[in-house]
Amino acid sequence: MHIEVVSSVNEAREARLTQRTAIVIDVLRATSTIVTALEAGAAGIVPVETVLEARALQRPGDVMAGERFCRKIAGFDLGNSPFEFTADAVKDRRIVLTTTNGTRALHKALRADNVLAGSLLNASACAKTAADLRRDIVILCAGSHDEFAIEDGLCAGLIIDRLQALGLSVETNDFGAAMRGFYRDSRPFLAETMLQGATGKRLVKLGCMREIERCAQVDASEAVPRLQGDTLVLG
Amino acid sequence: MHIEVVSSVNEAREARLTQRTAIVIDVLRATSTIVTALEAGAAGIVPVETVLEARALQRPGDVMAGERFCRKIAGFDLGNSPFEFTADAVKDRRIVLTTTNGTRALHKALRADNVLAGSLLNASACAKTAADLRRDIVILCAGSHDEFAIEDGLCAGLIIDRLQALGLSVETNDFGAAMRGFYRDSRPFLAETMLQGATGKRLVKLGCMREIERCAQVDASEAVPRLQGDTLVLG
Repeated sequence: MHIEVVSSVNEAREARLTQRTAIVIDVLRATSTIVTALEAGAAGIVPVETVLEARALQRPGDVMAGERFCRKIAGFDLGNSPFEFTADAVKDRRIVLTTTNGTRALHKALRADNVLAGSLLNASACAKTAADLRRDIVILCAGSHDEFAIEDGLCAGLIIDRLQALGLSVETNDFGAAMRGFYRDSRPFLAETMLQGATGKRLVKLGCMREIERCAQVDASEAVPRLQGDTLVLG
Repeated sequence: MHIEVVSSVNEAREARLTQRTAIVIDVLRATSTIVTALEAGAAGIVPVETVLEARALQRPGDVMAGERFCRKIAGFDLGNSPFEFTADAVKDRRIVLTTTNGTRALHKALRADNVLAGSLLNASACAKTAADLRRDIVILCAGSHDEFAIEDGLCAGLIIDRLQALGLSVETNDFGAAMRGFYRDSRPFLAETMLQGATGKRLVKLGCMREIERCAQVDASEAVPRLQGDTLVLG
């Protein structure tokens, strides 16, 4: 099985996605939030790129969610913190979500045969699901503002590690091999490593330290969000 | 001191270079070869982007060197293997060098205040020289065909490690932090890691296994090539 890791949305070329399974990663925070929301019982999540699109899609009963510059969008129900997506807030409801990087990355991945949302929270479950789909894999790190983000790289390395632990014969591109090594070096202190990154620092300044710790909980969830049409659901 | 690591030539934006020291890395093989050639007594090395430019610059006594697709250019004196750049071949002579990725990366770096050539061979010496120049640093990984190359990432991580060992307070971008972790994980088996990369595999196919082992010798040299005008010389 070949695994290609793409360092940021900017680097994603559509040609690489056809006939593959794409795993989109935006650890801080879109894909961590998506995993949390579906596990809390949300009916589905529609990722959209712009606030205008989100408003255009809104149906009665929908939860409108998202952020710009790490803050909740004015007039929306929820921001982009996993802590907000409780069963009380989202159970059996559809969520329309727009974030700065993560939802863009999900849209970039649309040409893949299968699109999964990966995070540290669901890394093992996500690796297992991707392996079962028996396609080559593209791991698309969302990054932040077109730059590589350290937490997404950690998660890519972790997922490769988990795919190898399944006994698969795994080959990666150079960037994937580097991310696997980086993850192995950082394994004992994932949250601390995330705090050193640009997004981590930004979230700490905004008082969101707890969210980083929450998003750093490896394998806390079995939920594997998968795109069906325009909506992420549990498989 | 801030250190920004750029993953490939493609990602280099000129604005980032002004008032900084650039360290250009193309471990397989341009910067390893440049270090070797200057240590062997070459008078200087002029890196150029195209074969035409190289021919236009040629003066009597010059050594014409370079590769395309890992092979020596027809009619040139030398290819791009460190083993070719012996004192017999290059002592006191000027070398005009054109390679697929490394010389392009050197040209991208021209706007920096100082441009150094880094490799595993001269990592510690290069870190020391860059520290003495007291500028923020951009480490520009040449990569291969606009993609990240694993051996350049290893070398970037090693140089950051060495800068920290000098007792400097070092801050990196997210990619630099990842490369430092990757290097630390791979330290016990650098040559093996390089063999897994795309360029390593290509060179092995061409029978250049020994060159990879040669280029993997950390701190074998004190030579730090530095650009003066259009020519790399020893500082």
